[in-house]
Amino acid sequence: MDAHDLAEDEEEAKHYVQAVSTFMQYYAHSMKTIKEKVKWYVALSERQRSLIPKYEEHLRSVSSCIAKNFHVLRSIIEGVSDMFENMVIDVPVKERLPQVPDFQIDKLPSVLRQLVRDWAAEGQSERDGSYKPVIMEAERLFPGPERSKIRVLVPGAGLGRLAWEFARRGFDCQGNEYSLLMLFCSNFVLNRCDTANAFVIHPWIHQWSNNMTYSDQVASVTFPDVNPASLNSGGRLSMTAGDFLEVYARQSNCWDLVTTVFFIDTANNIIDYFETIYRLLKPGGYWINMGPLLYHFADMPGEPSIELAYEEIVDVMQRVGFRLLYQKADIPTGYTQNVSSMLRYTYRCVYFVCAKPNDDEEES
Amino acid sequence: MDAHDLAEDEEEAKHYVQAVSTFMQYYAHSMKTIKEKVKWYVALSERQRSLIPKYEEHLRSVSSCIAKNFHVLRSIIEGVSDMFENMVIDVPVKERLPQVPDFQIDKLPSVLRQLVRDWAAEGQSERDGSYKPVIMEAERLFPGPERSKIRVLVPGAGLGRLAWEFARRGFDCQGNEYSLLMLFCSNFVLNRCDTANAFVIHPWIHQWSNNMTYSDQVASVTFPDVNPASLNSGGRLSMTAGDFLEVYARQSNCWDLVTTVFFIDTANNIIDYFETIYRLLKPGGYWINMGPLLYHFADMPGEPSIELAYEEIVDVMQRVGFRLLYQKADIPTGYTQNVSSMLRYTYRCVYFVCAKPNDDEEES
Repeated sequence: MDAHDLAEDEEEAKHYVQAVSTFMQYYAHSMKTIKEKVKWYVALSERQRSLIPKYEEHLRSVSSCIAKNFHVLRSIIEGVSDMFENMVIDVPVKERLPQVPDFQIDKLPSVLRQLVRDWAAEGQSERDGSYKPVIMEAERLFPGPERSKIRVLVPGAGLGRLAWEFARRGFDCQGNEYSLLMLFCSNFVLNRCDTANAFVIHPWIHQWSNNMTYSDQVASVTFPDVNPASLNSGGRLSMTAGDFLEVYARQSNCWDLVTTVFFIDTANNIIDYFETIYRLLKPGGYWINMGPLLYHFADMPGEPSIELAYEEIVDVMQRVGFRLLYQKADIPTGYTQNVSSMLRYTYRCVYFVCAKPNDDEEES
Repeated sequence: MDAHDLAEDEEEAKHYVQAVSTFMQYYAHSMKTIKEKVKWYVALSERQRSLIPKYEEHLRSVSSCIAKNFHVLRSIIEGVSDMFENMVIDVPVKERLPQVPDFQIDKLPSVLRQLVRDWAAEGQSERDGSYKPVIMEAERLFPGPERSKIRVLVPGAGLGRLAWEFARRGFDCQGNEYSLLMLFCSNFVLNRCDTANAFVIHPWIHQWSNNMTYSDQVASVTFPDVNPASLNSGGRLSMTAGDFLEVYARQSNCWDLVTTVFFIDTANNIIDYFETIYRLLKPGGYWINMGPLLYHFADMPGEPSIELAYEEIVDVMQRVGFRLLYQKADIPTGYTQNVSSMLRYTYRCVYFVCAKPNDDEEES
């Protein structure tokens, strides 16, 4: 191990401890918000308080949901220290965990919503919209009985449902994910859940706006909707941690299929993704994409960001070398959407299937 | 004029000068963003630049749209110094305008989109969704020929289209708006435009994500879709500037109709709005509301915010004294929506009509 590796390991360990801290600070951080709201409520005149008799009770009810969410989030980080084969980390005792900034803890509500998207019955329609077309196409492209020899890569695997679905269908699938918050959760669901509907969360309690009823805000959701341990397919599932471009920097010509769902717009430079996917695929391999173009770095000062319109993306992938087999635009899809909210976000996704030409095709 | 008034006047003059500065800094501020994007483009390898031949041209094209938007924004602030009857303001010469913070200038793209919503053909479907039911109900409630005696108040009047529509139908209508950026624009459209389709803006150029084509981003929109000077109805239109609760603090029992569209959720305390609207209405007067519950202060630390679910709002208005005549939920409506974007926001609005009881009703 050289000095560079050592520095890298230290950096990784630091991220890891910060992610554990983020989970641990969820309760105190969320209750700060509640205390603020109680303060404004108490500052109302007695007359105004009497006009909203359900509100105080609602604040109590949200507090109790925060405690229940925290219970689940704590279960998720118990046992993560042996999550990575290549990393042994000393997590400081609870009292000595570092303070993480608020914006970091504010990512946890989105992790809760991701749990719904990937692992709850309430996420079924989003999964049908985003994952199903991709899975059906993969099954069509690889109909044979030898599916366990087909290597599928899922960059931006999030909480792992799409990768798991491939493994369940007999593929040899690897998910890659950058966010440790996500990786902790996918590790929990994939490796430490062996019963369906064992856990309950309240994913919408952090949304104070656009509620028709108070019960909409405190609604509970159980997960996982399936027993993740029930693969029995001959398929395999693995997960890698880290930046897609770095983790796969030294591989080429080794994947039969790469599927990107709500992923390609997470890059500083989307062209790097296209070139990497091309290099990673075996000649004759396929790339299936579904998602919008919400460039993650578009509004971050100081961060490189190349924002291409879809029309140019279609050209780029072909210039990189792909053959475009199929494309469809304007596919309405939600993303961690609270369907009872008075505000709805709908992505009009693009879906496309590309092939990396076989060596003989390239020459022709 | 006492010391208090003087301090208030000074404060108002300061806001006013800041708003003028905001408009004046649009060009330089927006071009900073372009320069940043050019920097990342130039930093690409020659190979990658050759893969995206349209992108550099697109950056040039957006720059030219920024210049055109600035031309219109400058026209808007020319002549605003005599906008308020009760205020004479010395606007410093251009070189000595104060620097305003970036987040302030970042409000201008939303002002451009509001111009589309209120005064362009492209905003017709949003106006049909939000304003039309309110206007039709008002016409039904006040069918008589004496409409010029009917006093209508529109809090949160934005760029003035709803208030103008009331005046066009013969009502005596007053709009109230807090934002000086909005007031500058409504003043421009209502008092200094006398030709339809005289101006061109590029309202979507600040959206770098979710574009199907580059031409979607640079699309032009002309305004106003009608000649705002063409009232000819016997109706009257006036606008007041300032916070709704402050401007109308000393009035009671003097309005026949109050209409709130995308407004009630702008309060620190929504109950204050309900009580104020009740007090302002004549006995027998009506309140019509259309909008979501996107509480503006919900996520602002240190700002009071009372976030009620709609179920409680229905109770509150009746406890305040209103009779609820009609309500409808789940009305899908856009708000300054770019319909060509791959990301759509839809509000599922609530619409309701209330009456302030006549004195004899109250006693019964």
